[in-house]
Amino acid sequence: MLNVTFLGTAGSLPTPERNPSAILINREGEMLLFDCGEGTQRQMMRARTGMMRLNYIFLTHLHADHILGIPGLLETMAFQGRVEPITIAGPIHTARLVECFKSVCYFSRNFEVIALELSPEDVVKMKGYQVRAIETRHSVPSLGYVLEEDQRLGRFDRDAAISLGVPPGPLFGRLQHGHEVAVEGRVVQPQQVMGPPRPGRKVVYTGDTRPCRSVEDAGRGADLLIHDSALASDMIEWAMETKHSTAKEAAELARRAGVRHLILTHISSRYSEDSSQLLNEARLIFEKTDVAEDLMSLEIRFKDE
Amino acid sequence: MLNVTFLGTAGSLPTPERNPSAILINREGEMLLFDCGEGTQRQMMRARTGMMRLNYIFLTHLHADHILGIPGLLETMAFQGRVEPITIAGPIHTARLVECFKSVCYFSRNFEVIALELSPEDVVKMKGYQVRAIETRHSVPSLGYVLEEDQRLGRFDRDAAISLGVPPGPLFGRLQHGHEVAVEGRVVQPQQVMGPPRPGRKVVYTGDTRPCRSVEDAGRGADLLIHDSALASDMIEWAMETKHSTAKEAAELARRAGVRHLILTHISSRYSEDSSQLLNEARLIFEKTDVAEDLMSLEIRFKDE
Repeated sequence: MLNVTFLGTAGSLPTPERNPSAILINREGEMLLFDCGEGTQRQMMRARTGMMRLNYIFLTHLHADHILGIPGLLETMAFQGRVEPITIAGPIHTARLVECFKSVCYFSRNFEVIALELSPEDVVKMKGYQVRAIETRHSVPSLGYVLEEDQRLGRFDRDAAISLGVPPGPLFGRLQHGHEVAVEGRVVQPQQVMGPPRPGRKVVYTGDTRPCRSVEDAGRGADLLIHDSALASDMIEWAMETKHSTAKEAAELARRAGVRHLILTHISSRYSEDSSQLLNEARLIFEKTDVAEDLMSLEIRFKDE
Repeated sequence: MLNVTFLGTAGSLPTPERNPSAILINREGEMLLFDCGEGTQRQMMRARTGMMRLNYIFLTHLHADHILGIPGLLETMAFQGRVEPITIAGPIHTARLVECFKSVCYFSRNFEVIALELSPEDVVKMKGYQVRAIETRHSVPSLGYVLEEDQRLGRFDRDAAISLGVPPGPLFGRLQHGHEVAVEGRVVQPQQVMGPPRPGRKVVYTGDTRPCRSVEDAGRGADLLIHDSALASDMIEWAMETKHSTAKEAAELARRAGVRHLILTHISSRYSEDSSQLLNEARLIFEKTDVAEDLMSLEIRFKDE
């Protein structure tokens, strides 16, 4: 299970339809939040995601529309009796922000809130996957994130194993896990019965950014690229001034990188109700594009599934 | 026009149905916000209240569920080009809170945010009405608020004026505004043609509190009492421990004070979808009771209308 739920897809201004930025990724029951705009906890309630298994919040940058949901979320976790620590990772000044959020309100918690400041290419290692920070280009210090699963074992060729004399049973498991086995005085090597390692899944989230090379590099082989697409091409000057991307630019980057699927987010309030202009201009360039909507959820499949 | 819109009616935990606390009062186009829980700006958008004419936010206390909507609201006002100052009034430590909210995020504003710390019986004088802070009893320093309009002029007795020889026209206006007029050598006094001054409207909002005498006193003659009613009577011990009121207690206070209308709010998540238990127990004691729902709006009429 690798599930992505868009909790907030608005641009800088929320609208009745769109909450400020937040994306929840659920990997095998472990939850990661990417950005946490005001109202995120209520969006989690609406999406019925639960919040007890949320242990990491990754912030792309510290603009208000990406962070103001944090203190309320922490407060609700405290109400619910949380004791497990939670880590808030983000670019420079994240530690100061976390201190500020801890000091606001009359706040009593029985869990630790850990601030983790990251630089591009820093990696947070998880069990079976990692989250890597990448460079992005916004108007303040910013990061994108790449969630990459570890390689999976290659396919096991059951028929080949049997023809080499390996009987079905525990020896199959040993071969699958990379150990040689001895049968009838001969040694069978794992590589004789296992295909090459298969890639895990990869999701890239840009946060707010101009199109940039580091995102394109990170996007190679990505199963999903979630890209800033605040504006349509007719507002390219404003996108450049405010350090956002147009839908066309996001699509061009997705095509160059060869991602499997592009989702546009951080939708300016201009297109909040009707985002077809963004979708249309992107699909002309990269067909497998969608526009994120609040509470939209999708399952990321393996390439070989 | 004196209109009350409930933007958030949740207890300490928001729910899919109920946003954290916020009440907007619109008096003749001038808007006042009482409490500002997370997500208030989006509730204002849903209710289509606008936010340019909002110049005052009154905080009952500084618990997270009453304040976390402030920075996002200020940010959106800044985006919209606001230049008028806004005042955030509340109990002790409000100034520190405002400083914290100003320092969080990369925040550029072209308007002033003024912190105003109030004590019980402090009055903020407006044109034609005032907002008075009153003592309440919660687990942290807290205030309730009374919005009271100035007395209106008495009724003008047009027939009496004519029979005293005053011709319809500008002299009527002078009498209505308290000036004597001379007609045919005689002086006509305003009190000869004007009824006694008529009361303005009065709305009381408790914020979070145990029932208390100061609220009861303030409630006398109130057109609307908005009272903490977090819990039903079967949870009275928990209400006492957490310094909230039950629906029954709110209704008893409303009956003693003789208010015209009681609205219960700060509804615990237990009753979020179905608040009939609260309503039923309150109506047994005070018939003119309603339970607040998010985006519910009502117009307060003059007693003599």
